[in-house]
Amino acid sequence: MSAPVDVKQQKRAKFQQVFNTIRDELVEHMKSENMAQDAVDWYKRNLDYNVPGGKLNRGMSVVDSVEILRGRSLSDDEYFKAALLGWCIEFLQAFFLVSDDIMDASITRRSQPCYYRLDGVGNIAINDSFMLEGAIYHLLQKYFRSEPYYVHLLESFHETTYRTEMGQLVDLITAPEDHVDLTKFSIKKHAFIVQYKTAYYSFYLSVALAMRMCGVPESYTLNGRTVEPYKAALSILLPLGEYFQIQDDFLDYHGTPEQIGKIGTDIVDNKCSWCINIALSVANTDQRKILDECYGRKDAEKEAKVKAVYEEIGLPARYFAYEEEAYQRITTLINDIPEPEPGTDNGYLRREVFTSFLNKIYKRTK
Amino acid sequence: MSAPVDVKQQKRAKFQQVFNTIRDELVEHMKSENMAQDAVDWYKRNLDYNVPGGKLNRGMSVVDSVEILRGRSLSDDEYFKAALLGWCIEFLQAFFLVSDDIMDASITRRSQPCYYRLDGVGNIAINDSFMLEGAIYHLLQKYFRSEPYYVHLLESFHETTYRTEMGQLVDLITAPEDHVDLTKFSIKKHAFIVQYKTAYYSFYLSVALAMRMCGVPESYTLNGRTVEPYKAALSILLPLGEYFQIQDDFLDYHGTPEQIGKIGTDIVDNKCSWCINIALSVANTDQRKILDECYGRKDAEKEAKVKAVYEEIGLPARYFAYEEEAYQRITTLINDIPEPEPGTDNGYLRREVFTSFLNKIYKRTK
Repeated sequence: MSAPVDVKQQKRAKFQQVFNTIRDELVEHMKSENMAQDAVDWYKRNLDYNVPGGKLNRGMSVVDSVEILRGRSLSDDEYFKAALLGWCIEFLQAFFLVSDDIMDASITRRSQPCYYRLDGVGNIAINDSFMLEGAIYHLLQKYFRSEPYYVHLLESFHETTYRTEMGQLVDLITAPEDHVDLTKFSIKKHAFIVQYKTAYYSFYLSVALAMRMCGVPESYTLNGRTVEPYKAALSILLPLGEYFQIQDDFLDYHGTPEQIGKIGTDIVDNKCSWCINIALSVANTDQRKILDECYGRKDAEKEAKVKAVYEEIGLPARYFAYEEEAYQRITTLINDIPEPEPGTDNGYLRREVFTSFLNKIYKRTK
Repeated sequence: MSAPVDVKQQKRAKFQQVFNTIRDELVEHMKSENMAQDAVDWYKRNLDYNVPGGKLNRGMSVVDSVEILRGRSLSDDEYFKAALLGWCIEFLQAFFLVSDDIMDASITRRSQPCYYRLDGVGNIAINDSFMLEGAIYHLLQKYFRSEPYYVHLLESFHETTYRTEMGQLVDLITAPEDHVDLTKFSIKKHAFIVQYKTAYYSFYLSVALAMRMCGVPESYTLNGRTVEPYKAALSILLPLGEYFQIQDDFLDYHGTPEQIGKIGTDIVDNKCSWCINIALSVANTDQRKILDECYGRKDAEKEAKVKAVYEEIGLPARYFAYEEEAYQRITTLINDIPEPEPGTDNGYLRREVFTSFLNKIYKRTK
């Protein structure tokens, strides 16, 4: 069950507040380094334009996960620290999005012009994206340096960043917008791209950071079972992130603009989507010919032909079957985690960390 | 005194060897993550094309500094670790250069086409530059995780990276190639750009990493003096890096192509060079008018007019006076460090760490 709208809005507003504190602190830091005022102003615009405008699901998940792991509501200090870690994920995402938009030559992002397209910005946005990443480590040092889990936070960000870049590399050379070659596509490559480019930073990172903050150790024994909680979290959140992205891919094709808030463009953009990979895996010779000739072309008729093949092979039914299978598979993994007694603040992993994600996305249509 | 040529070449060859080990390990890591072979090959080319081809002064300085601090030659393991830290600086530099070349729309780098200009690369080079940075933290984790100074290595790279990006930001918005506005220039901005964009990563970082590896503590007492060795190193290496860059700026204007191996382009490229900032600080009204009209223009006659102003104001004499003053000032700072007994492996700072840098660059003409 979702929380009522006003509670959700309050949660979001409280989380947003923390950004203002962080932004002011980052700007003050630049001043303290004697940076010229025009550059300080530039940096402030970089932060305001690129960091806070998204859905903030990744960032707020850290707070939610810390609350679940603690089994109670948080003190002001705990809330601030959890929210700060959440914002660090939003900074990481901003770093990726600003640079992705340049690499993809995108036009708009979050209903406004992409940052690099602002007057006078252009490729300076590349260095600005670096500074969004750089801010993460400045913030972690300032607020977590004396914590025993500080080095784990750093490593979590390093590993996640590197893996996201690996996924982005495979995506960029597998599905360039200007050169269609469907022989490069495969379900296996799709799985790699989705896990590395999206699942690590969008799902695993928030939970791993929350676990570190709550003192969850590398391994423990509970109810006679030995648990390696970070490995367990990864084994659940990678498939969960994959399921989320496959939903995204399917909704791009099958969702109405009213549902998804945009018109899907994966087919004309030559995206290595779950849909095309399923189609390629079952297409007969005639269908394959249509896909080769029509996929990734800026041509509405060709796009319609690809969609006709998707219908012929029964893609919606295949998706709904996938969704059921994924839901069951992930639920089984979650239920395999030994559950601690409720209400104890004890550094154990809890199933609700994962079910709260899963229930938010199961059967979503937007 | 410089070492004989063949000793220098042997040192360089030994250092180069370590790159092959690192490169193979990074490529193997990608394979172990099940990255598709075409992406693994792409990443290998990224490493080979961008990391090893420079002068390697920054990287080899780590090895030299560790040898000086230890006061003896290194074991194979010590050598490998020092060289690995040195290569991490070369990776950091490669990250900056690949992205700088895109931002500056440069044509060549190290006598070959800029990486982003290779067939099929283009803006994918942005993500490739990220992966060069990402490799640093993978390597540090693999080889230094169990060392007590591991977290200091991470922080050294974080802080240096962020500061370099700050310097790059100020440089980019102060001196864009396509919009000349000399009112934005000043000696103070030049000092900021030079220290942040160049001196931290090119001078301070190598010494700080070597000090960490040798167990130099945050502070110690020697000969009745309390030393904060990292602050002392910074207080020497920032002015030393500034001096180095001012030499570069001066040689771009005054060096012959035979000396500097290229034709200087700072004037036509609207660079925020030491030369123009000195000229602006002493120019009369007529000279200022010429500078405003002629600086940063792709026009050989206008470039010659700027050079004529440089001659009128006696820029060479001003440079030689600066050089003597800087040399004396830096020497005084170095001699203020209490010197430990020779031949002891004791975690103290040593003057030779700095004099070895200073003697390499004093009165250089190339």
